[in-house]
Amino acid sequence: MMNAPASLAGLEVGYDVPALPGMAEADIQTPCLILDLDALERNIKKMGDYARAHGMRHRAHGKMHKSVDVLKLQMELGGAIGVCCQKVSEAEVFARAGFKDILVSNQVRDAAKIDRLAKLPAYGARVIVCVDDPANVADLSAAAQKHGTVIECFVEIDCGAGRCGVKTSPEVVEIATAVDAAPGLKFTGIQAYQGAMQHIDGYEERKAKLDAAIAQVKKAVEALKAVGLEPELVSGGGTGSYYFESNSGVYNELQCGSYAFMDADYGRIRDEEGKRIDQGEWENALFILTSVMSHAKPHLAVVDAGLKAQSVDSGLPVVYGRDDVKYIKCSDEHGVVEDPNGVLKINEKLRLVPGHCDPTCNVHDWYVGVRNGKVETLWPVSARGKAY
Amino acid sequence: MMNAPASLAGLEVGYDVPALPGMAEADIQTPCLILDLDALERNIKKMGDYARAHGMRHRAHGKMHKSVDVLKLQMELGGAIGVCCQKVSEAEVFARAGFKDILVSNQVRDAAKIDRLAKLPAYGARVIVCVDDPANVADLSAAAQKHGTVIECFVEIDCGAGRCGVKTSPEVVEIATAVDAAPGLKFTGIQAYQGAMQHIDGYEERKAKLDAAIAQVKKAVEALKAVGLEPELVSGGGTGSYYFESNSGVYNELQCGSYAFMDADYGRIRDEEGKRIDQGEWENALFILTSVMSHAKPHLAVVDAGLKAQSVDSGLPVVYGRDDVKYIKCSDEHGVVEDPNGVLKINEKLRLVPGHCDPTCNVHDWYVGVRNGKVETLWPVSARGKAY
Repeated sequence: MMNAPASLAGLEVGYDVPALPGMAEADIQTPCLILDLDALERNIKKMGDYARAHGMRHRAHGKMHKSVDVLKLQMELGGAIGVCCQKVSEAEVFARAGFKDILVSNQVRDAAKIDRLAKLPAYGARVIVCVDDPANVADLSAAAQKHGTVIECFVEIDCGAGRCGVKTSPEVVEIATAVDAAPGLKFTGIQAYQGAMQHIDGYEERKAKLDAAIAQVKKAVEALKAVGLEPELVSGGGTGSYYFESNSGVYNELQCGSYAFMDADYGRIRDEEGKRIDQGEWENALFILTSVMSHAKPHLAVVDAGLKAQSVDSGLPVVYGRDDVKYIKCSDEHGVVEDPNGVLKINEKLRLVPGHCDPTCNVHDWYVGVRNGKVETLWPVSARGKAY
Repeated sequence: MMNAPASLAGLEVGYDVPALPGMAEADIQTPCLILDLDALERNIKKMGDYARAHGMRHRAHGKMHKSVDVLKLQMELGGAIGVCCQKVSEAEVFARAGFKDILVSNQVRDAAKIDRLAKLPAYGARVIVCVDDPANVADLSAAAQKHGTVIECFVEIDCGAGRCGVKTSPEVVEIATAVDAAPGLKFTGIQAYQGAMQHIDGYEERKAKLDAAIAQVKKAVEALKAVGLEPELVSGGGTGSYYFESNSGVYNELQCGSYAFMDADYGRIRDEEGKRIDQGEWENALFILTSVMSHAKPHLAVVDAGLKAQSVDSGLPVVYGRDDVKYIKCSDEHGVVEDPNGVLKINEKLRLVPGHCDPTCNVHDWYVGVRNGKVETLWPVSARGKAY
């Protein structure tokens, strides 16, 4: 069902691609993204086991990796039931690749985008979209009818993320009822993702925010049941919260993304025992590989990964596995690394844990998959640039 | 000499590209980058006139736009003598496109990168690279000899940017002498870019930093003259400082980039009269076009341009031409816009001035050139992804 592996024929290392399969890890051209395939596979299996044990569907979040190949692994090794993503063009990448259960966990309002969305079921996929405004319903319905397809709809509840979504049960019921009555549409459930709490370090503080979200969603579900519109799916949950949703008795679908790769911002949050989640619960599997390119000052090294190799919205990257050196400054093409004892050598490579994985993956074209010191695979960031 | 215009045949609006030439501006798919072609051309002509009037070479900074087409305009309308950029693969994009004077304003240390660099003159280009370590000289020389080419070298002086470069005149002379003696290399001049001062708001504070840099460079030039190595080129100068370098009597080459597009961070700095530089000196020519996609809360609108449509390292974007609404929050795929009077409508488009143009351009694949409400051209971000 999946798309064929990307052809690497004719691609030049250092121009088109950072590496090719079979190369030694030491020869990878930097800066680039590398995936520790062992760690990635362990993360993916672990989340799959967790979801299965808790009777939850896991709809892997494709906006994080934008990769057909990572999603394939999440389905094969992690039992993911499908994918969610944020934009129509991104969903289209996954639909064209043959995935069969796709949620656009976002609003789609533009006429051209609605038209493209309505065509996606023709690829053989179940397609779900979020709605937070009754005015959206007629447009979605018209497009589905035009293309002879069915668009399934989640009513989006804003349960704390502070972006899209309605807040009250009457609003939820109003939209669900409108969807249910609209030809070409199907009311399928609720989108309720508490995004603002995912990065709160303390477990109890996160739990308090999610308890409130669960109560809000529960109320909406009861109001829907009262009008005969019990939701088939109640979807939400991220890497900082999936255990709350899983034990809520209200949600039945998770949308975790970052667990697979980890990043420095998520890594800092604490589990129930007060332990960082990147030290046991999950492993760092994604790194920016960078090289020392200047050491003209004895106590400062300059590396080749700057703002164009990552996003620093959630803080600077952390040098993995070392506490003798520290990434302290970032400009367009340079990172400045504090090296108080002058231990770094020119061309030495460092693994950086990015501050925030999603927008970091979005600036790269390739993942270099490594295992046992060798490049095993090269995966395109399939939906990079698909922002519409 | 330039590369042929990108073929747009078969590209789908909303999947591959945000627009196609001939479309109404109102139909552009968002989020995407748009260029106001009139403003861009005025900026480019103005910098060209300034450089000409001051007897300066202008080597347009290609790392900002990564675009063969924008560079072409800078040469044709702005009299640019060539290009500088930061990475070998980026330089290779410009060399392959036929540009003849290319500076990699950065260190190149990795063996594979040095090898690719040494091959660039075979495209017919003069190729210059920066050196800040005598240990680099032998490697560059060996690669140039291997390929039968000449690599020209700038000694990089750290005159305040705090990244690469040496600080003292004896170090400059040591490296220049080594380059001069090395087969396949040519000592051509000095790279001295004061990057840290470009974003200081006050004119006098910026001037003080640049006065210090000029004094440092002058001393190095005198030391070089004393050993018979007078530099042919002394290169540096950005959008916040080019007038200082131009009047220094020491520099003869500018490296301005951001002036062509402008951004919110640069826009805030002040000219000699205390006026913002985006209100007279330069015009905003680059915008992120975004659409309102949710307005479920009366006082907050959600737009479709978030972290994956820009870099927020230098602050949030500014809504262009309006003070009734304000972009206040950014997540992966959403921007939250404060709309106290609820004036924004669903699907309404806003022009955002990005906080920092370089890393914002780097996340997009296309520039949509608009004039008089129509899409006139579509230019690829030619070197996007060329990070090596």
